[in-house]
Amino acid sequence: MGSELDETVKVKLTIEYAGEAFSGFQRQAGQQTVQGSIEAALSTMFAGYAKKTGLNAPEECLLTGAGRTDAGVHARGQVASFSWPSQFDFDPYRVLSSINALTPRELQVLSAEERADDFDARFSPHYKCYQYRIMLRKVEPALERHRVWQISQPLDVPAMADAASRFAGIHDFSSFRARDCSAKTTERTLRRSELTQLDQENILFTVEGNGFMKQMIRIMTGTLVEIGAGRRQPEYIDQLFELRDRTKAGPTAPPDGLTMMWVRYEGEGL
Amino acid sequence: MGSELDETVKVKLTIEYAGEAFSGFQRQAGQQTVQGSIEAALSTMFAGYAKKTGLNAPEECLLTGAGRTDAGVHARGQVASFSWPSQFDFDPYRVLSSINALTPRELQVLSAEERADDFDARFSPHYKCYQYRIMLRKVEPALERHRVWQISQPLDVPAMADAASRFAGIHDFSSFRARDCSAKTTERTLRRSELTQLDQENILFTVEGNGFMKQMIRIMTGTLVEIGAGRRQPEYIDQLFELRDRTKAGPTAPPDGLTMMWVRYEGEGL
Repeated sequence: MGSELDETVKVKLTIEYAGEAFSGFQRQAGQQTVQGSIEAALSTMFAGYAKKTGLNAPEECLLTGAGRTDAGVHARGQVASFSWPSQFDFDPYRVLSSINALTPRELQVLSAEERADDFDARFSPHYKCYQYRIMLRKVEPALERHRVWQISQPLDVPAMADAASRFAGIHDFSSFRARDCSAKTTERTLRRSELTQLDQENILFTVEGNGFMKQMIRIMTGTLVEIGAGRRQPEYIDQLFELRDRTKAGPTAPPDGLTMMWVRYEGEGL
Repeated sequence: MGSELDETVKVKLTIEYAGEAFSGFQRQAGQQTVQGSIEAALSTMFAGYAKKTGLNAPEECLLTGAGRTDAGVHARGQVASFSWPSQFDFDPYRVLSSINALTPRELQVLSAEERADDFDARFSPHYKCYQYRIMLRKVEPALERHRVWQISQPLDVPAMADAASRFAGIHDFSSFRARDCSAKTTERTLRRSELTQLDQENILFTVEGNGFMKQMIRIMTGTLVEIGAGRRQPEYIDQLFELRDRTKAGPTAPPDGLTMMWVRYEGEGL
């Protein structure tokens, strides 16, 4: 992609971040957020390009994310996109290094790639994978602090695994979204929903789907833990799909255990 | 173990800590250390016991650790011991909770157990396991910050694995100890020394032995990385055993990637 280029193109970023350092993905005045940090870095970077070349910097740099993760939620492979100003040469390694130099160390851009202009991290069809990690022990985590939901009471893991499998398929997830969620449709498709015990202390809940509502996975996880604690039966998940009532599901699990693992778009082995 | 007890006994603690929060294991005036934090917590705890019972608190509480880890080195299963003052009742859960309440969150006592008076975390015969994790990628870690040694250049992992296997057995490790190491004997036995590639980005070096000298594993790791980078052949390890010269080995690897995994004593399935 050289300076001879006429059309606008998009840049696709793959990003890792430690959620505890950010007030979530979305830009918020006066808060350190993922979107805010990267947009500020892009502005600074383009101002530098403009100074060097004598060309104009873009008036604004807007970043779109595949998933707008909550405060405290981590990412190993969040994807975000922005328009590349056609007056500047695109060098993926230079873009990646510039953003990483200008953002907090708890955020690292892993790759920067050129995409067609119709690519949009949020609206282009994709699948996303999230994992939620629960640590079963009485003592707080020292090494995994901010990375797990530590639970002291014993949990019935087979019952949780049964319940987790019921989320797979097409369902109305109205019972599993934040009260202030503004999504217009509430039906979602999960092509994977699986809970496994990794070892004596660790449980991993993995979901893959093409769309998630606000706090959906955290509410699903909170409900699984209620089932694990014996307060509900696994079949209760099916009932919750019918009930369409947030107040009937379990509490919202803390963000600490949740990590956005990857996003895959059409043409990427979806 | 009740108040009727006449003889002194030892308490064995199993401890997890995040190394970046401590200036190493050993007590140092004006620094936050593992030993210092726990000894201070014990003093406070015993002062409380004394106040409640009218009995005397011990004059000093000395903690012994199985391994005196350097600043920045982590532990999942460090073991430490101290003498229990016979005038007080021993309740393992109360001891564990008190220490955890009185020490930084980056340190967690996982268990407290009664042991015979001749038990000493450092001098009782034991095996220790350490793991060193290397992350192979160009970008700094965001989620694994302080937990890995991130290396940008490609490494020859099979050559490193060959070299690592040469550490197993009985050898003179003089080339692999800190210049200021004061150990009187330099022969050590490693019953396991293995380097494996976990996935595209991660290499794990595991060693088990009954004794390690100051910075020994970090210097071994630094030497393995020199071999992986092609600056030395795997056979060079054998030469280093003969050379007995610290200046001929590789650099000392950063503490970040090193974790003390477990310690096992006689009678514990050594």
